[in-house]
Amino acid sequence: MNSFVLKGNVLFSENLDRIGAYPDHFLVCEDGLCRGVFRELPERYALLPVTDYGDNLIIPGLVDLHIHAPQYAYRGMGMDLELMDWLQQQAFLEEAKYADEAYANRAYSMFAEQMKKSATTRASIFATQHRGATEILMDLLEETGLVTCVGKINMDQDAPDDLIEPSADISAYNTIGWINHTSGKYQRTKPILTPRFIPSCTKQLLEKLREVRRTYDLPVQSHLSENPGEVALVKQLFPEAAFYGHCYDRYDLFGRKPESEFTGETIMAHCVYSTDEEIRLLKQNGVYVAHCPASNMNLSSGIAPIRMYLELGLRVGLGSDVAGGQTESIFRAMTDAIQVSKLYWRLVDKSSKQLIFDEVFYLATRGGGAFFGKVGSFEDGYEFDALVLNDAGLPHPQKLNLHQRLERFAYLSADSDGIVSKYVAGKRIL
Amino acid sequence: MNSFVLKGNVLFSENLDRIGAYPDHFLVCEDGLCRGVFRELPERYALLPVTDYGDNLIIPGLVDLHIHAPQYAYRGMGMDLELMDWLQQQAFLEEAKYADEAYANRAYSMFAEQMKKSATTRASIFATQHRGATEILMDLLEETGLVTCVGKINMDQDAPDDLIEPSADISAYNTIGWINHTSGKYQRTKPILTPRFIPSCTKQLLEKLREVRRTYDLPVQSHLSENPGEVALVKQLFPEAAFYGHCYDRYDLFGRKPESEFTGETIMAHCVYSTDEEIRLLKQNGVYVAHCPASNMNLSSGIAPIRMYLELGLRVGLGSDVAGGQTESIFRAMTDAIQVSKLYWRLVDKSSKQLIFDEVFYLATRGGGAFFGKVGSFEDGYEFDALVLNDAGLPHPQKLNLHQRLERFAYLSADSDGIVSKYVAGKRIL
Repeated sequence: MNSFVLKGNVLFSENLDRIGAYPDHFLVCEDGLCRGVFRELPERYALLPVTDYGDNLIIPGLVDLHIHAPQYAYRGMGMDLELMDWLQQQAFLEEAKYADEAYANRAYSMFAEQMKKSATTRASIFATQHRGATEILMDLLEETGLVTCVGKINMDQDAPDDLIEPSADISAYNTIGWINHTSGKYQRTKPILTPRFIPSCTKQLLEKLREVRRTYDLPVQSHLSENPGEVALVKQLFPEAAFYGHCYDRYDLFGRKPESEFTGETIMAHCVYSTDEEIRLLKQNGVYVAHCPASNMNLSSGIAPIRMYLELGLRVGLGSDVAGGQTESIFRAMTDAIQVSKLYWRLVDKSSKQLIFDEVFYLATRGGGAFFGKVGSFEDGYEFDALVLNDAGLPHPQKLNLHQRLERFAYLSADSDGIVSKYVAGKRIL
Repeated sequence: MNSFVLKGNVLFSENLDRIGAYPDHFLVCEDGLCRGVFRELPERYALLPVTDYGDNLIIPGLVDLHIHAPQYAYRGMGMDLELMDWLQQQAFLEEAKYADEAYANRAYSMFAEQMKKSATTRASIFATQHRGATEILMDLLEETGLVTCVGKINMDQDAPDDLIEPSADISAYNTIGWINHTSGKYQRTKPILTPRFIPSCTKQLLEKLREVRRTYDLPVQSHLSENPGEVALVKQLFPEAAFYGHCYDRYDLFGRKPESEFTGETIMAHCVYSTDEEIRLLKQNGVYVAHCPASNMNLSSGIAPIRMYLELGLRVGLGSDVAGGQTESIFRAMTDAIQVSKLYWRLVDKSSKQLIFDEVFYLATRGGGAFFGKVGSFEDGYEFDALVLNDAGLPHPQKLNLHQRLERFAYLSADSDGIVSKYVAGKRIL
């Protein structure tokens, strides 16, 4: 079971700056794992069923390291608001509705359905502070076949009363209840510890979350150095911290620590304004940077220095950051990442070379995929996540090679049209 | 004939920063002209046929002030190339193919078909230097029902031999032949004088084009101050010019001139690096600035200071600039314009307020529409261009108002999905 062969035009990242292209090849999945790409099907796989996708493109699934499920309802709206107004008038107002589980079920059903149809195969997702709604979301996501981490948010200050948790103790108590109820419950859906961001959390809460993390060895996701106003606020709240990331790190919520025993997987979204010290700690602790270019434009945050992060060897993936970003499309995040890197080169730093298509494709597949293990490639031993893309809806008069076709698909197919079929961990879900 | 009533949710720009929204209203077209928007249908229109579009949105058609038809074939590809490499390896190579009229017919048929399905109702279009291919394009566009200006390019230097015209005389001769053959031939398709840009034109050619313009009183389109390398090249070629736009103006190719008799309609694409003097002349001569934000990102050009242009009262519209821009979607150009204005505020000039949705909607409708006359509004007397939009494909759990629905449609529907029907100058074409 979960062993089969796909035939088509196969592309995947061979390294950061090179996409390998294999026209009319065989791609083998055995027990949910990739066994490689072949010109001729090896004899040992001769008995596996073959699905012939003809002239379609086959690529690894895309990974979204940062998306807010409850914000999906208002994606692409209220974009003219400033960050703090946007949070107050839109994000918080909408998120408060998830206390109502009927509403949560309706809204999250739409989210799960759209994510299933999207190019995303794996995602790390923010829910709200509501345990009930978060479990509804996890149930729905499990049914889609996607592999996800889902976080019940922790926040006990700096938001309307109906949204914050009444105390650090209650926040921790609900979080532990949620973890106990959901860890191991699902095959594909896992809890992830999710302090909303430093301004939302009292020190008491952060201390509690440290204990939770030590007990359960969960991964962590949060926001970091997204915009200057937020960075200044954190400085004011934590004058004793050397830099923003230090606030998380003091509570063991910032990747690996040499002395600690937990695995340490951590995603920090944005990192637009990380200082040199913060960047060193991101690297030292193996923290994943979730680059969310659309959100950083929409909320007037700026442009993250991704070229530098890649040169320094940081772990980097892409995030849609719906609804800071307007769409769940990671194809769109890829091309946005290229475009803003070009503006960064032009307007900020001429020594920062623009990102190329092969690089953002790497970020969208292997870069973010590494957070989930051996994910994002068709090399032997990788988990089998694949998208089958039909680009026939994009007419052209001339002959195109596979690389051109993939680049064009990414630039022009921002929605789920053209995604013919989708496999996650060896299972066809679309 | 061409008199009818549409019913639905009507939105249009009332002024630069306000979209008016009229739920469940009647929109009257009489002899191809708009007669206004009504809550109750006035008695005098009671005999006109009514099409009820139910809960769909009805907005004025969008206007594309700058698009290259022959570049449509490679939209969304080769985006990692630098401007000069991109021109040499992609633009010029592809454009040379249009010497072959069979190829031109195949490629331009695809372009015309896609434009028909797009949100664009009117466009100003670059072809190539080939007269035959340009006339094929004009024939095809006329059939679509769109209203367009189409330019046979003039270029007699600084490109491969198979692309440039052999001399200024031959360029002018072919241009006059083309104008004589196409002026008045079509109902909806008009020739527009199109020097490619200053580096492509000898002074002899510009002098000839001045004469052509004086004789035929044609509108003009070209490129202006797109990126620093190009601006420096122009300075070198025209040391005597005070600024880039001055080169066009010396040859009466830059809008109105107080002493001249021709109407002077001129579109200049980009204007990212216009100097104060150039901006004064843009305003004085009533030149339209075609703002092409995607292209300015893709080619690492920068960000045009559109807020300043609006404050100074310049005429501004939007351009897709395919294939510098990857898509013909003017909805996408609208949201790109907002996004880059936010980065401009953040990275370049904190006094330059970000563009809001209502403003870019104005640019896409009335701003660019003015180039074509009374176009881009549903006020009494405007030509009747309308799009009917179905946003049911964008699920949401909450109640939305019309403004939210339109904003969301623009941010999320970058392709032609959701365009239910399309009217141009009172004629339904889709």
